[in-house]
Amino acid sequence: MKLLHTADWHIGKQLNEFDLLDVQQDAFKQIEAIAAAEQVDGIIIAGDLYDRAIPSTAAVKAFDQMLQQLNITDKYPIYAISGNHDGATRLNFAREWMKQNDLHLNTKVEEAFTDNVVVGDVQIFMLPFFDPQDARMYYQISIDSNEMRTIEQAMTRVVADLEQQFEPGKRHILVTHFNVQGTDNENYELTSETTSTVGGLNTVPARLFKNFDYVALGHLHLRQASPTRTVRYSGSPVKFNTKEAKNEKGVYIIDIPTTGEIGITWKTITPSKDLIVLRGDFEKLIDRDFYSEQPKPGEAFYSIQLTSRPAGKNIRKQLEDIYGDIVELEYHIQGDETQAATEQLAQRVAKTKSPEEIIGDFYNEMMDPAQLTEQQQKWVEAALIDIRKDSEA
Amino acid sequence: MKLLHTADWHIGKQLNEFDLLDVQQDAFKQIEAIAAAEQVDGIIIAGDLYDRAIPSTAAVKAFDQMLQQLNITDKYPIYAISGNHDGATRLNFAREWMKQNDLHLNTKVEEAFTDNVVVGDVQIFMLPFFDPQDARMYYQISIDSNEMRTIEQAMTRVVADLEQQFEPGKRHILVTHFNVQGTDNENYELTSETTSTVGGLNTVPARLFKNFDYVALGHLHLRQASPTRTVRYSGSPVKFNTKEAKNEKGVYIIDIPTTGEIGITWKTITPSKDLIVLRGDFEKLIDRDFYSEQPKPGEAFYSIQLTSRPAGKNIRKQLEDIYGDIVELEYHIQGDETQAATEQLAQRVAKTKSPEEIIGDFYNEMMDPAQLTEQQQKWVEAALIDIRKDSEA
Repeated sequence: MKLLHTADWHIGKQLNEFDLLDVQQDAFKQIEAIAAAEQVDGIIIAGDLYDRAIPSTAAVKAFDQMLQQLNITDKYPIYAISGNHDGATRLNFAREWMKQNDLHLNTKVEEAFTDNVVVGDVQIFMLPFFDPQDARMYYQISIDSNEMRTIEQAMTRVVADLEQQFEPGKRHILVTHFNVQGTDNENYELTSETTSTVGGLNTVPARLFKNFDYVALGHLHLRQASPTRTVRYSGSPVKFNTKEAKNEKGVYIIDIPTTGEIGITWKTITPSKDLIVLRGDFEKLIDRDFYSEQPKPGEAFYSIQLTSRPAGKNIRKQLEDIYGDIVELEYHIQGDETQAATEQLAQRVAKTKSPEEIIGDFYNEMMDPAQLTEQQQKWVEAALIDIRKDSEA
Repeated sequence: MKLLHTADWHIGKQLNEFDLLDVQQDAFKQIEAIAAAEQVDGIIIAGDLYDRAIPSTAAVKAFDQMLQQLNITDKYPIYAISGNHDGATRLNFAREWMKQNDLHLNTKVEEAFTDNVVVGDVQIFMLPFFDPQDARMYYQISIDSNEMRTIEQAMTRVVADLEQQFEPGKRHILVTHFNVQGTDNENYELTSETTSTVGGLNTVPARLFKNFDYVALGHLHLRQASPTRTVRYSGSPVKFNTKEAKNEKGVYIIDIPTTGEIGITWKTITPSKDLIVLRGDFEKLIDRDFYSEQPKPGEAFYSIQLTSRPAGKNIRKQLEDIYGDIVELEYHIQGDETQAATEQLAQRVAKTKSPEEIIGDFYNEMMDPAQLTEQQQKWVEAALIDIRKDSEA
């Protein structure tokens, strides 16, 4: 069995104010072409289908047409889940009808158990993004209990229960959407734009998935973040921020023999409109010899890092006349180190610490010094979950 | 062929702050029971499925389960359209999969032409709510043209084109969602809560539909508003405001023989929690002899019209202790006629004039006197359409 593994489509996402829908449509067509060339038996979409819980009508229409194309016109079975960006309840609408045409879309923890699919030698489990509170509700754990306070604790139980459903003699595939950490990955990089943390409350160790033959992950946007050979991020098909600008985008083709090693092949997607980071002083950037080497206006999105602060006015306007769509214009001035250092620190903190940890650090600093009590930690966690859920209601 | 005709479910609607979802679920079960008892061959839902373009997640979930019950579990074909309250694009999601299971849901004008259904002797057309601008876009009429400025003009063309698709020898049924005016209806009452007007820009004359054997309408919430015997409103299954309090709710069973008169039978729905209007002075309302005759707290929603202004404080609280859920508390004081007259005038204006006409009148009054130019009228109309469309985006 041959599957295409993609994730993190984020349909409807904008790069600052720039609409990515055209680029996303083009990437979609490339995915469809890869599926046809590889003659895959199905397509995995591992969460973050939309960019937000209530997507724009344009995003809804585009996503509907993409699913129609793959599932109704091209007749591929689809194995999809919701990610942390999706609104699980809204995305759940009409799934029962889609299922009848082999479009499987799970958005609730319980559906990982009720709706797994066996195709030939392969059993596919689709476990959508969930937070510990969702798992506690599913397992009817009392609100005061200390059980399943972290996603690792919740996932340990969920995986054990999924394994109970393993049909013997089959290959077992999991589709899921979390920040999964491995031990044998030297390239490990945090690249999801969502708040995630290494070793924090929000990560799942890859070893939990050791009994699956392949784990198709979504959440982190670069395949280089994959924790192990068979627990793998496909990354997003489109570049969503400057940290992703230099990395190739694409999908995996997963070849699943009845026994033996899973085949994993990378297929690249070429952006119809690339995201390019330019760095230099103003004089360099407006030098014809330099800019004539770059894609023409309209052919790329530019993130520009100026290393000098030019004297004139309308800097952005001048650069836009040359480059077109500038999604970011930043000053990276040498000597101006306080500001740069503060920004870098803030970025590093946001990248390496969870919101819970940042709040804990802040409390510690302010209260001279003191730790949050366990009860206070629970309140913080509950408040953060509420904030996330509110954005869906 | 036997069809059940219902409309205006407005799933997710609230009566002021009171959630109607339980009452709506109960009415749904009664509709399902009527369909079973009557052994109907299909169910028409003539628009305003939700109460707003972006319904709550609870409404989405409830509506999905209702459709599942009728279409997947009970196996009824469904013939549905979007109404003016629905978000046409959002509701369009997944319709291609639903269609494969005989759940037909049209939300765009063009789908009335591409997706009509023939079942035995009967051809069913589903024409969703649209405004003149939608029709002009569909017919590619230039923005400056004077064609199709009113819904009557647009509908005349649409109906003529639908008639082109009539299969000869069939009975022709139309499902649609407008303010349709008849000539032979003495009970005519405006009961939709949406802005509508008699003889204004927003009404459609029933004679346009003379070549259909039955027109299943949604939009106005009382069946008494039906313009002719066979151009008919089923009304909403639930009482949505005090003007509907005294009227029975229900659905129609439509019996369509190969030839001869269409059979039309009314089936009532009993509200699980009724809406009751009480009128009187405060002393009467807090008199045990009076209130002990009324449903107990929690068993009904109350709209209370006080004919005296009592001296004490916490009037609402005292009444709530007796009656429970008070969705409206109004003072209708004799002698206090200026206020009452102003309110009545405002209500009458809103009921009998379209927003366009009200703006025109206001302009006329302010400009001492002057009429809006044709160009100004177009701007007003475009602005009003934008306001409506914005609520969907």
